[in-house]
Amino acid sequence: MSTDGEDTSQETNPPTPLPDPENLEVILEAERFIKTLEILDAISYESILLFGANGIDVRLVDPGNVTMTDLDLETGAFEHYGNGSYPAGVSHEELLDLLKLADSNGLVQLAFDAETRKLHVEFGRIERDFALIDPESIRRRPDIPAIYDSLPNTIEIPAEYIKEAVKNAQLVSDHIYIEADMHEEAVSFWADGDTDDTYYTFRDDDYEHADIREGATSIVSLDWMEDLVKVIPKEATVEVTFGEEKPVFLKWRYADGNGTVTQTLAPRITSDR
Amino acid sequence: MSTDGEDTSQETNPPTPLPDPENLEVILEAERFIKTLEILDAISYESILLFGANGIDVRLVDPGNVTMTDLDLETGAFEHYGNGSYPAGVSHEELLDLLKLADSNGLVQLAFDAETRKLHVEFGRIERDFALIDPESIRRRPDIPAIYDSLPNTIEIPAEYIKEAVKNAQLVSDHIYIEADMHEEAVSFWADGDTDDTYYTFRDDDYEHADIREGATSIVSLDWMEDLVKVIPKEATVEVTFGEEKPVFLKWRYADGNGTVTQTLAPRITSDR
Amino acid sequence: MSTDGEDTSQETNPPTPLPDPENLEVILEAERFIKTLEILDAISYESILLFGANGIDVRLVDPGNVTMTDLDLETGAFEHYGNGSYPAGVSHEELLDLLKLADSNGLVQLAFDAETRKLHVEFGRIERDFALIDPESIRRRPDIPAIYDSLPNTIEIPAEYIKEAVKNAQLVSDHIYIEADMHEEAVSFWADGDTDDTYYTFRDDDYEHADIREGATSIVSLDWMEDLVKVIPKEATVEVTFGEEKPVFLKWRYADGNGTVTQTLAPRITSDR
Repeated sequence: MSTDGEDTSQETNPPTPLPDPENLEVILEAERFIKTLEILDAISYESILLFGANGIDVRLVDPGNVTMTDLDLETGAFEHYGNGSYPAGVSHEELLDLLKLADSNGLVQLAFDAETRKLHVEFGRIERDFALIDPESIRRRPDIPAIYDSLPNTIEIPAEYIKEAVKNAQLVSDHIYIEADMHEEAVSFWADGDTDDTYYTFRDDDYEHADIREGATSIVSLDWMEDLVKVIPKEATVEVTFGEEKPVFLKWRYADGNGTVTQTLAPRITSDR
Repeated sequence: MSTDGEDTSQETNPPTPLPDPENLEVILEAERFIKTLEILDAISYESILLFGANGIDVRLVDPGNVTMTDLDLETGAFEHYGNGSYPAGVSHEELLDLLKLADSNGLVQLAFDAETRKLHVEFGRIERDFALIDPESIRRRPDIPAIYDSLPNTIEIPAEYIKEAVKNAQLVSDHIYIEADMHEEAVSFWADGDTDDTYYTFRDDDYEHADIREGATSIVSLDWMEDLVKVIPKEATVEVTFGEEKPVFLKWRYADGNGTVTQTLAPRITSDR
Repeated sequence: MSTDGEDTSQETNPPTPLPDPENLEVILEAERFIKTLEILDAISYESILLFGANGIDVRLVDPGNVTMTDLDLETGAFEHYGNGSYPAGVSHEELLDLLKLADSNGLVQLAFDAETRKLHVEFGRIERDFALIDPESIRRRPDIPAIYDSLPNTIEIPAEYIKEAVKNAQLVSDHIYIEADMHEEAVSFWADGDTDDTYYTFRDDDYEHADIREGATSIVSLDWMEDLVKVIPKEATVEVTFGEEKPVFLKWRYADGNGTVTQTLAPRITSDR
């Protein structure tokens, strides 16, 4: 993330693979595994899926360093999660293509085959062994920008409203302004077009909770914003955290609260504001 | 309309803007406004939307002068319609793109902002000010062909049947014959293809009412006919009026009877018949 | 069919047109006629539709001789089937385009007009006379490979599973192996990809009936397999019959059991197995 030199790590204990991946096997609902892969696929083609005794844990940046996704699917989301853990380099699309054939409520078994060094995926009448991607060829796990805790403004809004706000802004521009108004306790998602501006404003009744401590604005790319919000489940509540020309964080849950996702988007710095 | 020199106006009092557009504001259901714009968009990209104390009133011809649409949405269709009236030059598509974000049963507020000279559109959390198109750059309001009252044949048929008749003719040709048979009291929508003809015939039970006074045929473009009939609501009854090589008129209602639309289609003159 | 020189006919009495097509007229549900045409359209654009007193009877091979479809829709599927019978050369797509306009539960009348030598099709308010294709320009009715009765393996499986097995194999290859395992009484539909293989295996509970007498494998084209299985009704049960490097037969019923379809697929001979 390009965040003005403030990106020292918040993470003191980066997860390391557990020692025994020999009998590694996890079982979870197809729907949850599919959703997990879709969230990751929004920003890159492959990822190092650390799966096993701690559930599934992935942190990714896009190739251009504009956006980051941190995903943690806890063991509560699994039917079985075994003892070991293994960082499997996988292609999201290959897995998703196969999982289209699964019943969404059916169970999927993932296992690491220590002998062939392949990922064994099994559900219903289907069995497949995926050759894994060399983790060295995939970008290293990035750090989360430390700035998160010092950002002044937070608003909690239903996911479907934020999706609408993005569509509204896309009608006139390819950037979106996220702006807090301290007096009105309002947050606007707006865009300036060639002939006219368009506003999507959250006031009192429109949000679930807000903490506005600064009249700040951050501008981010609408293309990335669209990619990020399209994977947020419609029924989720999104916590949007931002400050003046600082990264924008979207934090939300999925898989009955067992999955936590934090999406970060670098701001566009404008000299003329 | 190219109607053999018969297009003197039926209209004695063309609508003029009312004097006070200062506090102009109308409110109507999103669905009705969307339908209105879709009807107009079938024949041109922009129109001069005369809106206010008389509801919405628009008359349009396509760029090639082949078809005309006359639309009148009465004040009964509005929640609020104010005092003034203003001829706003609007792009149908820009408005329709924005209105996709509205709840179809929700209300939309349109206002003319006398200061900025923009059209203010507001619904839910969304606010947008549209720069208006110079009415001088849009075609002047045309006259309705006076010939309408002297046409010999009229048949009232359900909209979905006329849509089917158009699809049937499109299988073999790009023109459609509308032909009345006085003896059978039947009207056929037929087309002649390279190897075979195809008929769609309305007899006794197929129409709601018919007044056939001449065994006449009119031939019109199927491309235009398709564009016109696709915006007719499925549940509408369409009054088709025609004569020998004369314009074809389609008249129907929408918005719970508060909207009246007359679509006119110039005939193709065939020397070899 | 290229079937190793074994394709002498099973058929001792090939159907011949009955003598009196003058008053030929059949009536059946639109849905059944549409399904019949879709099944045939999966392997060729036209066919010689023998229709009349024996229902509808068609046998087709694709232009490349890889696949054959034998279709027999018995008179029980018809409301009326007349006395004569006529081999009409028809374009599937032209008929299907017209039948899109029919109510699926409505009736369609087909008649041979001895005077114009056209196929008269009528339903609802629509009437059309199709110029017929010269039967001489369409491939002659082929024979069914006699090998069918000597194949060792048969398994009956729900249509939707065979569709899934095809999709699974398509993820990695363009050929599919159909392989019987005598010990496990299992049949696998599998494919070998560049980096990994994928299996779809029918064991005890997955099939309705199986008769496995040889551990045989047949390899067929996935493109053709896809075209054939896509026209099988979801609720059908498919009888798959195969042997070592022999043609694969898919046999199933439609139209409430009144229609019987046998699809045959030539095997790909591999020298390296």
